[in-house]
Amino acid sequence: MPIITLTTDFGLKDPFVGIMKGVILSICPQATVIDLTHNITPQDIKETTFVLASAYRFFPKGSIHIVVVDPGVGSQRRPLLVKTPNYFFIAPDNGVLELIYQKEKVKVYRLNRPEYFLPQVSATFHGRDIFAPVAAHLAKGVLPEALGEEIEDFIRLNWPWPEISGQMLKGEVIYIDRFGNLITNISKEDFKKFIKPFSQQPFRIHIKDITLDHISPYYLAEKPGTILALWDSSDHLEIACRLGNARERLGVGVGERVVVEVLK
Amino acid sequence: MPIITLTTDFGLKDPFVGIMKGVILSICPQATVIDLTHNITPQDIKETTFVLASAYRFFPKGSIHIVVVDPGVGSQRRPLLVKTPNYFFIAPDNGVLELIYQKEKVKVYRLNRPEYFLPQVSATFHGRDIFAPVAAHLAKGVLPEALGEEIEDFIRLNWPWPEISGQMLKGEVIYIDRFGNLITNISKEDFKKFIKPFSQQPFRIHIKDITLDHISPYYLAEKPGTILALWDSSDHLEIACRLGNARERLGVGVGERVVVEVLK
Amino acid sequence: MPIITLTTDFGLKDPFVGIMKGVILSICPQATVIDLTHNITPQDIKETTFVLASAYRFFPKGSIHIVVVDPGVGSQRRPLLVKTPNYFFIAPDNGVLELIYQKEKVKVYRLNRPEYFLPQVSATFHGRDIFAPVAAHLAKGVLPEALGEEIEDFIRLNWPWPEISGQMLKGEVIYIDRFGNLITNISKEDFKKFIKPFSQQPFRIHIKDITLDHISPYYLAEKPGTILALWDSSDHLEIACRLGNARERLGVGVGERVVVEVLK
Repeated sequence: MPIITLTTDFGLKDPFVGIMKGVILSICPQATVIDLTHNITPQDIKETTFVLASAYRFFPKGSIHIVVVDPGVGSQRRPLLVKTPNYFFIAPDNGVLELIYQKEKVKVYRLNRPEYFLPQVSATFHGRDIFAPVAAHLAKGVLPEALGEEIEDFIRLNWPWPEISGQMLKGEVIYIDRFGNLITNISKEDFKKFIKPFSQQPFRIHIKDITLDHISPYYLAEKPGTILALWDSSDHLEIACRLGNARERLGVGVGERVVVEVLK
Repeated sequence: MPIITLTTDFGLKDPFVGIMKGVILSICPQATVIDLTHNITPQDIKETTFVLASAYRFFPKGSIHIVVVDPGVGSQRRPLLVKTPNYFFIAPDNGVLELIYQKEKVKVYRLNRPEYFLPQVSATFHGRDIFAPVAAHLAKGVLPEALGEEIEDFIRLNWPWPEISGQMLKGEVIYIDRFGNLITNISKEDFKKFIKPFSQQPFRIHIKDITLDHISPYYLAEKPGTILALWDSSDHLEIACRLGNARERLGVGVGERVVVEVLK
Repeated sequence: MPIITLTTDFGLKDPFVGIMKGVILSICPQATVIDLTHNITPQDIKETTFVLASAYRFFPKGSIHIVVVDPGVGSQRRPLLVKTPNYFFIAPDNGVLELIYQKEKVKVYRLNRPEYFLPQVSATFHGRDIFAPVAAHLAKGVLPEALGEEIEDFIRLNWPWPEISGQMLKGEVIYIDRFGNLITNISKEDFKKFIKPFSQQPFRIHIKDITLDHISPYYLAEKPGTILALWDSSDHLEIACRLGNARERLGVGVGERVVVEVLK
């Protein structure tokens, strides 16, 4: 019972997602198709790779993750199949799998076997015409080698990793969830490594004109309306507002600087 | 083929719902997961219990309903499993199951067996780390008694029931649907019981500055633009606007008073 | 493993869609239910038939398409089952299947066998009480003839086909997708038939105060910000804005005139 997930910027107004499921089930009726999200900010490749990285490993081994955030659809940009020890990814070659390349041992295939596409390939909807049918054939047992040829020159994304500069760990907001919580690119691991040499000293977290002096264990630990920091569900530093919306309260967006500073 | 439903305030932008499904299918691949809604007004416990009460009995016997509207996530608030003659409910102990407690004979268990949770439990996403895996184990056949210990002191919600005061039945709007229809807390049963002693007398329905003198059999029975009353699909009194939006037309929200008055 | 698709204007805030799935799975547990869209503009029958026409044939043979865009719910409007060589459609008799009637050889049945409905039929939610249970019984193998009686006088919609007038092919915008792309009623076939006698002459495409002199092969073929024309994924003429939103840029809506003109 193969599982195929979908991550797109198609939204849920148009029938595009339903159509992809129809194509998949026409080829592989036993597949279970799960929506990861279809509300990626249109054409936002950085957001997509972060969302995908926070989610893919919660699916059963062997799951196939389709990603269609694809500004170059119809052009010469290549469609890819990426194999990791536990998962498959099917996506356009535009950097959208960057964090998979960083976290996993990958084999990357360029999809070049039109006999596994729909008979007619449009210039605007490769999700339907290429990605969905290839995923369905893969789910049915066709091997990656039969679906494409291995390549090494796939496109990489310049990912904003946090930087250490003296007593400061400089990061930024990389994702804002529906509650207005600000997720930063500072992972618990980054933080621990940075803070270790200073373990006796207090630290501060700065965002805009706000300074926080501790990381809260959970939302309810602070008073309503308080801006707080905590570890989010993917172990990234999160700036939130208890019973409120941190994005609105602070008036910030993706890219906003967040700094952890150790006091002397 | 066990069915698990999801009711949350997660929205559909973030990958949280998809992640919960991944966790469920990793443990119980045969489960069918159905979305009830993910667009509960953030942290609105009263709305959630009403939505759930209107929906749960339309699912097959044995279905497991997960509810994650959970302002106290990460704190000491308890995760619950509730068993009724036909269904299971998995939810935080914050009153969100109030109408289930009212309508059903329940056994309530506090989930206290971490071996059925994900290995690492975050402070912000118990839907993924506790509720989803417990539901999946339950779907696989683990007994409620093995998942937690029975308790009696679960949290109750002060539910706004309609009140009779002389010739008046006083209720309020408790839910507004996507079309702007105003659903009240006055059920057909409440209404019939109230009106019975006055069965020869005419009645009026008041909301804001509008007075209605009958309950319409269906929308099309009134002229376009008319404010009307009818019985909604869960047999509650609904104030609607034919081919329009009653919420906008009347400028009202949840909590707005609706009164049925018998004339002398 | 029968497939049932849902197309409604219910939105995803209310639990209506989930409830319909509960009803279907209660009757036919093996069914796979796929959402086509639930964000049809409320009560927009023309939009619905276009969306459905672009999607239905991508599903496996035997799929059952339920459509609930139903301003006349509760009144005397008839519920229908429509059989084509490869699919079934279940919908209110209000013209919402017009493009199916145009494209397919159809048999149309009026659903008049309440033993296949839910025991109690409300005045506001036939999706739950009639359409879902009938689809589930059909999926279980009940024959169309057992579910209703064949009729010929089903309601037709006046569909806006493009018109040829001398050197001009006059069409209009019939759908706007989430990206703001303007989909017209001019199909590639219409265009080819029109342009054939003039094959040596250049043509222009007019919309509002914009004139285009060619049809682009794909979005990326034009500069960012450019208004362009191309064939959309259902082979209709689409007016788009590369890396932008054509609806907003041109300030147009559904119904806006689009003219292809052959130059002398």
